[in-house]
Amino acid sequence: MIIVFKSNITRKKEEAVLKEIKRLGYRPHIMRGVARTVVGAIGDELTHKSLEALATQFPDAVESVMPVQKRFKLVSREAHPANSTIAVRGTVIGGRKVQVMAGPCSVENEKQLLATAHAVRAAGATVLRGGAFKPRTSPYEFQGLGEKGLKLLAKARKETGLAVITELLSEDHAELVAEYADIIQIGARNSQNFQLLIAAAKTGKPILLKRGLAMRIEEWLLSGEYVLSNGNPGLMFCERGIRTFETCTRNTLDLSAVPIIKKESHCPVVVDPSQGSGRADLVIAMCKGAVAMGADALLIEVHPNPAEALSDGAQQLSLKGFAELMVELKPFIAAAGRE
Amino acid sequence: MIIVFKSNITRKKEEAVLKEIKRLGYRPHIMRGVARTVVGAIGDELTHKSLEALATQFPDAVESVMPVQKRFKLVSREAHPANSTIAVRGTVIGGRKVQVMAGPCSVENEKQLLATAHAVRAAGATVLRGGAFKPRTSPYEFQGLGEKGLKLLAKARKETGLAVITELLSEDHAELVAEYADIIQIGARNSQNFQLLIAAAKTGKPILLKRGLAMRIEEWLLSGEYVLSNGNPGLMFCERGIRTFETCTRNTLDLSAVPIIKKESHCPVVVDPSQGSGRADLVIAMCKGAVAMGADALLIEVHPNPAEALSDGAQQLSLKGFAELMVELKPFIAAAGRE
Amino acid sequence: MIIVFKSNITRKKEEAVLKEIKRLGYRPHIMRGVARTVVGAIGDELTHKSLEALATQFPDAVESVMPVQKRFKLVSREAHPANSTIAVRGTVIGGRKVQVMAGPCSVENEKQLLATAHAVRAAGATVLRGGAFKPRTSPYEFQGLGEKGLKLLAKARKETGLAVITELLSEDHAELVAEYADIIQIGARNSQNFQLLIAAAKTGKPILLKRGLAMRIEEWLLSGEYVLSNGNPGLMFCERGIRTFETCTRNTLDLSAVPIIKKESHCPVVVDPSQGSGRADLVIAMCKGAVAMGADALLIEVHPNPAEALSDGAQQLSLKGFAELMVELKPFIAAAGRE
Amino acid sequence: MIIVFKSNITRKKEEAVLKEIKRLGYRPHIMRGVARTVVGAIGDELTHKSLEALATQFPDAVESVMPVQKRFKLVSREAHPANSTIAVRGTVIGGRKVQVMAGPCSVENEKQLLATAHAVRAAGATVLRGGAFKPRTSPYEFQGLGEKGLKLLAKARKETGLAVITELLSEDHAELVAEYADIIQIGARNSQNFQLLIAAAKTGKPILLKRGLAMRIEEWLLSGEYVLSNGNPGLMFCERGIRTFETCTRNTLDLSAVPIIKKESHCPVVVDPSQGSGRADLVIAMCKGAVAMGADALLIEVHPNPAEALSDGAQQLSLKGFAELMVELKPFIAAAGRE
Repeated sequence: MIIVFKSNITRKKEEAVLKEIKRLGYRPHIMRGVARTVVGAIGDELTHKSLEALATQFPDAVESVMPVQKRFKLVSREAHPANSTIAVRGTVIGGRKVQVMAGPCSVENEKQLLATAHAVRAAGATVLRGGAFKPRTSPYEFQGLGEKGLKLLAKARKETGLAVITELLSEDHAELVAEYADIIQIGARNSQNFQLLIAAAKTGKPILLKRGLAMRIEEWLLSGEYVLSNGNPGLMFCERGIRTFETCTRNTLDLSAVPIIKKESHCPVVVDPSQGSGRADLVIAMCKGAVAMGADALLIEVHPNPAEALSDGAQQLSLKGFAELMVELKPFIAAAGRE
Repeated sequence: MIIVFKSNITRKKEEAVLKEIKRLGYRPHIMRGVARTVVGAIGDELTHKSLEALATQFPDAVESVMPVQKRFKLVSREAHPANSTIAVRGTVIGGRKVQVMAGPCSVENEKQLLATAHAVRAAGATVLRGGAFKPRTSPYEFQGLGEKGLKLLAKARKETGLAVITELLSEDHAELVAEYADIIQIGARNSQNFQLLIAAAKTGKPILLKRGLAMRIEEWLLSGEYVLSNGNPGLMFCERGIRTFETCTRNTLDLSAVPIIKKESHCPVVVDPSQGSGRADLVIAMCKGAVAMGADALLIEVHPNPAEALSDGAQQLSLKGFAELMVELKPFIAAAGRE
Repeated sequence: MIIVFKSNITRKKEEAVLKEIKRLGYRPHIMRGVARTVVGAIGDELTHKSLEALATQFPDAVESVMPVQKRFKLVSREAHPANSTIAVRGTVIGGRKVQVMAGPCSVENEKQLLATAHAVRAAGATVLRGGAFKPRTSPYEFQGLGEKGLKLLAKARKETGLAVITELLSEDHAELVAEYADIIQIGARNSQNFQLLIAAAKTGKPILLKRGLAMRIEEWLLSGEYVLSNGNPGLMFCERGIRTFETCTRNTLDLSAVPIIKKESHCPVVVDPSQGSGRADLVIAMCKGAVAMGADALLIEVHPNPAEALSDGAQQLSLKGFAELMVELKPFIAAAGRE
Repeated sequence: MIIVFKSNITRKKEEAVLKEIKRLGYRPHIMRGVARTVVGAIGDELTHKSLEALATQFPDAVESVMPVQKRFKLVSREAHPANSTIAVRGTVIGGRKVQVMAGPCSVENEKQLLATAHAVRAAGATVLRGGAFKPRTSPYEFQGLGEKGLKLLAKARKETGLAVITELLSEDHAELVAEYADIIQIGARNSQNFQLLIAAAKTGKPILLKRGLAMRIEEWLLSGEYVLSNGNPGLMFCERGIRTFETCTRNTLDLSAVPIIKKESHCPVVVDPSQGSGRADLVIAMCKGAVAMGADALLIEVHPNPAEALSDGAQQLSLKGFAELMVELKPFIAAAGRE
């Protein structure tokens, strides 16, 4: 911790602060600068008490307190310099191949799901996405088919060989969802629902952790830390847009998160351009950008008839649109040195 | 729903869109303007399918689709023109008296809690706050005392007569928390954790619903709708700051939310200036502003020794600071025509 | 400056960084902590070169670089511990009396302006606001009457004795506007138009500096520094809302800026609730909050017939609405210990 | 304009609103829906008065007012369906070739500028960037060499054949800057400094208009409208990041703006990854993403010794780093079907 003193501080006040720093288990180290005196408080910030309250406790003496250690450990590249990879049913995420996870926003019925599954598989997807439990802003909107939806996903997996990713909304459903899913998705609204993260981690299934709407990258890494520190190494981060003042997209897809996460962490990075833009007409451009910037996988909403969709129709690609996307992406995947 | 056509649309494309609108159960009503043709789609937006996918389905024809109905019902003033009030142990929230809920961020031990409870009661608070289950950004930070904390809150209630508010983090704890709490708090990170909202609502206890960090007011009202539509009328909204680009406060307290919620909804409005600023030195000014703007209650973090706090020390008032606040607030409460 | 080294740094790399720090004129001071080594670079950050490029120059060695000095000087309380006051035509801003500046968004014609001026004066305002040069998002919107508008303002001043505040948009108009105005307003869109700030400062007239839509408080103080460092002591800061994700107000009025600016700076603070909300129905509540939180003055848009206004009709109060506001504000002004 | 009535409105109130709509020159068209009555006000929104004040004027009757026309004209694809191209000294921006504009943040001295100019030309850049007038957050920071800097840019152009882009900060310098520059840059802080935009437009030189920190895309297009409506067809838009809550980049580069602007407008789109991230280590990934998403040009900060830079050292590439970037970009330019 670095403590910056106010410019006009007396020696007596300085000593009071130094005494408190020592009492909290740190060793203070004073540096007298030209305009400010600064104290380095030496001690492990992860195991000692925070000194941030010093500014409140000594308002006349302390101007600011700054931590110097990073707060995340297990997700960091320091802890694991090589890239992590996650294997599900023969599909490796985080390896040389850019994986595509595709499917409807919500599982609606057997016909819709199977038609989509066969089409996305034919176009090159390796994982089937589909929501069985749906978090909806309004209680009056379609909330998903629940377990019936999970069974349909399992059926689609059996027919197509695609691995299955689906969202977990409730701790109480963790075992149920893990029974059917190959990858458990934690949605943006639950990105700091730590109880849910712990319950998901404990199933042992790989976890795709979406970024929250107002989540700083450091907080996202710390949410990921909840997964790894609960004994589950199969974590991937999924950028899906943050909330900003811009209104012509649903969210602002922060593609810079891709190289930043790759730099700070060993975990694979996935990009969701459908939630990221909320507009099907932007999905192709977003996918190209994501691949060019180093994404390990894409998560794309596809529906046989977007206009009929029970949720988020405006952002789902048609089957034909998805097939075109997969063709258009190829040169960018090659340019990125991936498969 | 209002559908705006592109300026250069052909009659043939128009007809295709109109046909689709009818198929989805709406009656289209055409208005030919000077620069644009607009269609009013007549039908109940809350029970019919959304038309928002039309822009995707007919990209050459449809420029934009705008809903005209408000999406919330039970929380709205239209549904319940008078102010709601919530009574807990003789304390009425939403009535003439501005209530003050105060206590530590986290329940840490008996001595800390009882000292705080007696002090805040003496200064005029009527509800004791204190976290037993704590949502923490990092898994390495203090996570709360759990049930032991709840028992200490019950003990403090018994000694002081204060009602108790505490946060619920997990569906699995809903019954346990309801056993000890008079008011259940749903935190900012869980403001769209709909399963938790439903579980909390079903306990029958009054619910204080904090605003999420990136939550628009409409979304907040819709989260509240989950409480009322699950049979629990005891809902209050708590503004606690939103996340913006400003870094010199932890959050940006959006006090304009107070008059807006009072206008749109009948539910009481609470303001949390401690989370809202993250700085104890701003809490008094924030409280004055909140009362002046119509808040029904305040939720304030108080700790016998903020520098020793196991969480959020920088934003907690000392016992003395709280007592001073209560004195300084009086003229503003009177100016607002409250008690 | 504080330089944090990466955890795995070699002594050789350390020395290269230390050498560079010395070359740039700082004296390095090493602290070896438990998890990180930190260097305090001693030297005046305001006159020496920034060390922030070290992280780029030594990517394998340097994790982060943090300044410790505040970047503003003349606007700070350290430089001038007492409150500044600004006197214009007998009206003192920053003193015991809360001043009200009121008038139309745009000066439209003589009748509109004089009617407003007489009405706001009768209700208690002491400064007349009115835009002669208008910054408009679209080139097709009303751009103001220009010099004709300034002359009308001067006429209204002559008739009512009110001081006049009006916006300066162009360096080329600085002298012209200074000829007519008692206070020069720099708008939110020009809050970092430093050439305009310098030109305005050099007229010697008091300056009201609005906060930019995406301006951090530190940047606002630094823009104010351009005024004071160009020899003009008559600076006041005006909070008028920042841009956030919320869409039900035009901007998010950040009232916490009031106590923060009062703490960091000696300059008076004004609040503009009309721009801050964009909604006339919220203006009264906003004004009460602003006064309660310590604002020295209010800047309010008033129009004889808001529905006829050539700009921003939705946020202007009627003459009657303004008179009611002035009555309703009284108890809050008294509660704040002001006049 | 669409006017939505409140649900409980009386016929009498309806008539008062309709009368006002007619008085303002629109023809009202009533649609009675299931839950709401809606009025289409027929008339040209660009030439008629706005109806947005109706909600203020009739608070009991009018719930909301929504415009249906787009506010921009000359920059829109409707006005000019083909892509615009801009030619400067043989370099065509907006054509098949992706152009690279590179050079130092600030022109510091002859040696620095010439070394950079030769190096970026050798690596494939066609336009030289360099700031002669610098907008700086603090008045105590380096403000640029002014005209001396412009002369150095002209010298570098003469030696290398590169076209020159430089920023215009003041209306008073418009002619001076136009004398030296091939392209005039309007910076983010001046993106709504309409007087500056007009002065720049009138020089006849091509204009690169950066997006403001808090600028919605619609507002950006409208600022561009100031250029085209002042008789200058040579406009290009430059995305350089918006301000969000994220702190690990200086700004959040909104790459989705690239396909959106290409869709809404005919003008070329440039991306500035240096300002967009503030971190040299992210520039390469950002450039790849920008090219993949359809950018017509890149604007990149390059310095012979970033650690010595008088401004923004942390985000400037070294000469070697730039040359590597140009090599790494090639496959992505090819994948995008560009040269």
